[in-house]
Amino acid sequence: MHIHVAFTPDESAAAPTGVVIDVIRATSTICQALASGYERVLCAAEVEDARALGSGDGVTLGGERLGVRIDGFDLGNSPREYLEARSSTLAMSTTNGTRAIVTAAERCERVLIASLLNLGAVTEAAEAHGDDVAIFCAGVKGSFALDDSYVAGRIARVLGGERSDAAEAAVRLAASYPTAEEAFRASRSGRNLINHGAELEADIPYCAQESLLAVVPRLTGMNGVAAEIRL
Amino acid sequence: MHIHVAFTPDESAAAPTGVVIDVIRATSTICQALASGYERVLCAAEVEDARALGSGDGVTLGGERLGVRIDGFDLGNSPREYLEARSSTLAMSTTNGTRAIVTAAERCERVLIASLLNLGAVTEAAEAHGDDVAIFCAGVKGSFALDDSYVAGRIARVLGGERSDAAEAAVRLAASYPTAEEAFRASRSGRNLINHGAELEADIPYCAQESLLAVVPRLTGMNGVAAEIRL
Repeated sequence: MHIHVAFTPDESAAAPTGVVIDVIRATSTICQALASGYERVLCAAEVEDARALGSGDGVTLGGERLGVRIDGFDLGNSPREYLEARSSTLAMSTTNGTRAIVTAAERCERVLIASLLNLGAVTEAAEAHGDDVAIFCAGVKGSFALDDSYVAGRIARVLGGERSDAAEAAVRLAASYPTAEEAFRASRSGRNLINHGAELEADIPYCAQESLLAVVPRLTGMNGVAAEIRL
Repeated sequence: MHIHVAFTPDESAAAPTGVVIDVIRATSTICQALASGYERVLCAAEVEDARALGSGDGVTLGGERLGVRIDGFDLGNSPREYLEARSSTLAMSTTNGTRAIVTAAERCERVLIASLLNLGAVTEAAEAHGDDVAIFCAGVKGSFALDDSYVAGRIARVLGGERSDAAEAAVRLAASYPTAEEAFRASRSGRNLINHGAELEADIPYCAQESLLAVVPRLTGMNGVAAEIRL
């Protein structure tokens, strides 16, 4: 089994099994929402595309910009807002996460959604497929993100197999932090949450919990411009 | 001073001072050649572009493909072949290195060429400019390369300043190896040299020498499709 990591969506990477990470906070929230009973999550890059998926009967709209819930949306982007399902469908606006999912879909036979919350379940599922794995970090606007790369290293370490240069680097990066929370706090995404105050900062220890949820969200296809994810 | 690392040329990165690394072996060879008395190095991505720069009076042609000197070229890609200048101009064929240099030139006011051989001199020069620094790793065909990223981490550590997520990751990656030679041997580029036999493998400890040369090669401009580099 060959394990590769793409630190940004632009990097070349392809494998039968793709694993996508946007740990602060899109993929943590997707894991939490599906574990809480939402039947599907629709991820759209643009706010207007998420809004067009509707609100009200059967659809909850989730999204933030600059730490503030988007006007007309039901919830923000915190996984802690998704501990109970409010409808069958969650429509989320998430720019970096959607881009990484769509990129992985173009290059992989199957796409699994990863966070630390489902570390054990998602690595077990990737191993069960038995194929080579490409781990895609969403990053921030095309740039390397420490938090996603940390999680990539944790996943690559569990998977074992033959590591690409990037996978080896990710494993070493993850090993350099005593805890996930420390890595997340050091990241640009983590610092952004901290700068928005205690309410958003509380997402850092939440997202840093390991294998809390035994779910393996998978991309089931595109719904217009939105990526549809189900268990 | 803000320090950023682009692990691959495709990543977004811009700063007044650009530092380019293709340590195995293009930028090590450029440093060695200029330290040995070549007045300028012309780097071309394609073999035919280097060949068109001529051979014979005043021009030495350097380049390899798959570990073999290119037909009609005077020398290969090993820095150990450039311990004495054979002419005033060296024309080199180097795909990843040229691409990284040209990318840096599009985004930076000045471009410095770095390897471990000139670690002390190039970091001193970057600090002397006093501006933000973007370190560009050439990588391999657009992918992350452990050897270049190791050197990026060594440079970022010396520079100090405020690190981007990628710069912090590079510093931690470099710190995870006890020696440069160990990092280079673990990299895909290093393993390629090892697989080509003892003659090319000897380039690994050569390129792993630190601050052997007090040179700071700089991009002076484009010469057609070739990047022209001088001290």
